Amino acid sequence: MAAAFAADTDRFDPLNADDVRSYLHKAVDFVYDYYKSVESLPVLPGVEPGYLVRQLKSAAPPNAAAPFDVAMHELREAVVPGTTHWASPNFFAFFPATNSAAAIAGELVASAMNTVGFTWQANPAAAELEALALDWLAQLLLLPDSFMNRHTSAAAAAAGRGGTGNGTAGTGTIGGGVILGTTSEAMLVTLVAARDAALRRSGSDGMAGITRLTVYAPDQTHSTFFKACRLAGFDPANIRSIPTGADTDYALDPARLLEAMRRDADAGLVPTYVCVTVGTTSSNAVDPVGAAADAAAAFGAWVHVDAAYAGSACICPEFRHHLDGVERVDSVSLSPHKWLLTCLDCTCLWVRDTRRLTESLETRPEYLRNDASESGAVTDLKDMQVGVGRRFRGLKLWMVMRTYGAAKLRQHIRSDVAMAKVFEECVRADDRFEVVVPRNFALVCFRIRSSATAGMTEEDAEAANRELMERLNRSGRVFLANTVIGGKFVLRFAVGSTLQEERHVRSAWDLIKMTTTEIIKGQMD
Amino acid sequence: MAAAFAADTDRFDPLNADDVRSYLHKAVDFVYDYYKSVESLPVLPGVEPGYLVRQLKSAAPPNAAAPFDVAMHELREAVVPGTTHWASPNFFAFFPATNSAAAIAGELVASAMNTVGFTWQANPAAAELEALALDWLAQLLLLPDSFMNRHTSAAAAAAGRGGTGNGTAGTGTIGGGVILGTTSEAMLVTLVAARDAALRRSGSDGMAGITRLTVYAPDQTHSTFFKACRLAGFDPANIRSIPTGADTDYALDPARLLEAMRRDADAGLVPTYVCVTVGTTSSNAVDPVGAAADAAAAFGAWVHVDAAYAGSACICPEFRHHLDGVERVDSVSLSPHKWLLTCLDCTCLWVRDTRRLTESLETRPEYLRNDASESGAVTDLKDMQVGVGRRFRGLKLWMVMRTYGAAKLRQHIRSDVAMAKVFEECVRADDRFEVVVPRNFALVCFRIRSSATAGMTEEDAEAANRELMERLNRSGRVFLANTVIGGKFVLRFAVGSTLQEERHVRSAWDLIKMTTTEIIKGQMD
Repeated sequence: MAAAFAADTDRFDPLNADDVRSYLHKAVDFVYDYYKSVESLPVLPGVEPGYLVRQLKSAAPPNAAAPFDVAMHELREAVVPGTTHWASPNFFAFFPATNSAAAIAGELVASAMNTVGFTWQANPAAAELEALALDWLAQLLLLPDSFMNRHTSAAAAAAGRGGTGNGTAGTGTIGGGVILGTTSEAMLVTLVAARDAALRRSGSDGMAGITRLTVYAPDQTHSTFFKACRLAGFDPANIRSIPTGADTDYALDPARLLEAMRRDADAGLVPTYVCVTVGTTSSNAVDPVGAAADAAAAFGAWVHVDAAYAGSACICPEFRHHLDGVERVDSVSLSPHKWLLTCLDCTCLWVRDTRRLTESLETRPEYLRNDASESGAVTDLKDMQVGVGRRFRGLKLWMVMRTYGAAKLRQHIRSDVAMAKVFEECVRADDRFEVVVPRNFALVCFRIRSSATAGMTEEDAEAANRELMERLNRSGRVFLANTVIGGKFVLRFAVGSTLQEERHVRSAWDLIKMTTTEIIKGQMD
Repeated sequence: MAAAFAADTDRFDPLNADDVRSYLHKAVDFVYDYYKSVESLPVLPGVEPGYLVRQLKSAAPPNAAAPFDVAMHELREAVVPGTTHWASPNFFAFFPATNSAAAIAGELVASAMNTVGFTWQANPAAAELEALALDWLAQLLLLPDSFMNRHTSAAAAAAGRGGTGNGTAGTGTIGGGVILGTTSEAMLVTLVAARDAALRRSGSDGMAGITRLTVYAPDQTHSTFFKACRLAGFDPANIRSIPTGADTDYALDPARLLEAMRRDADAGLVPTYVCVTVGTTSSNAVDPVGAAADAAAAFGAWVHVDAAYAGSACICPEFRHHLDGVERVDSVSLSPHKWLLTCLDCTCLWVRDTRRLTESLETRPEYLRNDASESGAVTDLKDMQVGVGRRFRGLKLWMVMRTYGAAKLRQHIRSDVAMAKVFEECVRADDRFEVVVPRNFALVCFRIRSSATAGMTEEDAEAANRELMERLNRSGRVFLANTVIGGKFVLRFAVGSTLQEERHVRSAWDLIKMTTTEIIKGQMD
């Protein structure tokens, strides 16, 4: 063993400033070339499972060091060709992962400073910049003051908030936020807080009462919500998926929510949590926030608003009405990594009473105790998330808002919406297609209609739409995803990849038209 | 409102390649200067809560765009002075967040490509590079083949693994890994998998049986484990903290574990999960992995090994024995962001049977369906984590191993351990101090002993140790954390911040000695 494990005795200095600069300059050159060339790369790569190990011929880890150029070479030669290019202007699948120079630079600085901000003391600047970024974004969204950290200090002082975590300190509203990795985590931590509060209220001993707790969401809610419910231990039989339909454009009918909650309460169950969505993943439906809050109020259920994608649009006054009623909900989450130019990952969660989170999530190990935490003057962000460790999460979001300003961010949203309108008009102008649900933001759900040609059946149309998506994606020239709405296979055309311009939208439409013509011709042959 | 929200009609191009390069070059210059100067900055900043908003005078978000230099200026002037410098070579608190040029460059590229790899199709290269990086690290750790992804393809093919998620497809062992953000998430997802499996085994209807499930961990286990148990809905009354003591150097006594499990089983409860730690946070105790697995085997309980920090040392043959018995556990997690030069966040989780995870964590929304997933030839990593979205997580870990190679990584571990030995010898050579528990890795737990001077009581020593830590940290010249071991206040000296050299350790020791002399003199005055 000795020989194989013989230590190299040269000094090893992996954070030498000159090396860091040199490696980063190489990475920046790669990034520059990547953005310059990504438009011409196939959006969806044509690789088979297992391609990478075959290509790199490197199933075992190297023992010897290699120049950084080797990794960069393999990145270019083996990784890039197997990548699905979310940065491509021809990417129309899923929701775009928007990005910006300021965000990438912010993440770079955060990676280099590499602080672990579990407590305020562990990096005061990170804790405070995160609070500031959340407050700024809350202001752009016109969220009520009760969700803001700036409100917290004064209220906490008035309420004498301490580190006791018993939630009884004073009557002040203690709002605030935290940046998490995903909407799923935002759902999970609020579900757990609501679960524990409901158990306490119902005088349950331990978890025995959990089988009586019920949760609610429209059937268009992201599947990750139903998963988060199971993670938090809710009984699968108590997770209510409220049916939606064409009558509400697949948004929540609050009467159905109220009816479901009432039926459960009458049966001795405890309505605990309601999740509504502003901009569903499938079709961008918008659940009525205020009406859901009103329905839940009678039962004391927690209401969470998942505005992961479309929340960003609400920084524009013309979209803000989609959040009407938000002042009556308990929590809101929004992912700037989707539509606010902030690279992954960045999900903002605001809650009206941070104590309800910390009561469930607080830990106080000896090695993290410090005067600032004990004083109660600060919030330790570890107590608002699943984990303990955390990156310097606020920096990139702050840099995006600091550098671009509200006006440019609104311009960015409007530009995407305008391009989606262009696409929508193209679809509407062609009789062979239909727009399946109203376009609310920058997603257009469309399909070849069954009356596209004489004699085309619904089955033909279904097949044609599947074939259309498959051919488009196989071409490498665009990437679209699909969904099912009202039982029908529908194509999703999501505008907004950051390098996208109107010409990409128009050329995608040309390709869609041409491919459809071929498919219909094939069906008729 | 119109005026305030008037859109700027100039084209807004936040991902323009030239701007990206320019912003990143500024960020690289900052990083270079930061590493060059961080040694001279106070490790722990002397700021008060609320300092940042006061200094930036910017409670409201800007409307207008600003040159990127403005954000960079505020970063230097307001953020850096309020930062706790984890990158400082004078940082000895907590476990270090080690880092490297290759990792930062990898994260930069990942941020720029900004792909969202929820499914294999959503970025095949990311899925495969992550699997490769995990397999490489598993090989360096001499983990059994059963934890490896490379094993999976063959076994999956043999077992005819499909997307059914019913866990009944064949008998092959289906191991594999995933990179998560934190150890807490690794614990949570495995706890949920174990919970659901135990419920199924006991024929429980829904969650009704959860109050019968019990979980176990030594009392030195990280507090985040006990939090993860609560998140997963385990009954607080069923979470067993097994007492440890000086007789086992605060490691698990497997006889006590066995006794606790037996008592619960006799009472009709269901032992479900055991968490052991290789290198506890408080004192670096090492629980006996194999003995814990043997104890758990009789009850069919899931065994998880938390090797967040010290697992990295096990790439060196002289430390590998700490993982002995790992072939009999169900899952292992390790955070390269702690001791393997990979910036936050990066926690590797390996499981022996990925189907047990995916059975609990799988979601199958229509818009994520694709041929690759349906074929069963690939693993969609969203089904092994809390969330759906995920960064290109494998890139930086792969770049670290590809560039430095196993030999340099072992040298890095050994260098830190050697420096910790230097410090340990200094402490042992001074009669006023004691090393409280054996040093296993690069953490030295020490204190001023009560017999440091004639007439010093245990209370005096306690006060002196608290005073010592406070004065050291207030000086800005070093940052240490504390813990409590056997009821006594103990200082933790964690070697390993990446820029650290022996001179920093020696100069910290000089400061500790001098400060102790002052404190003892003060007590005697």
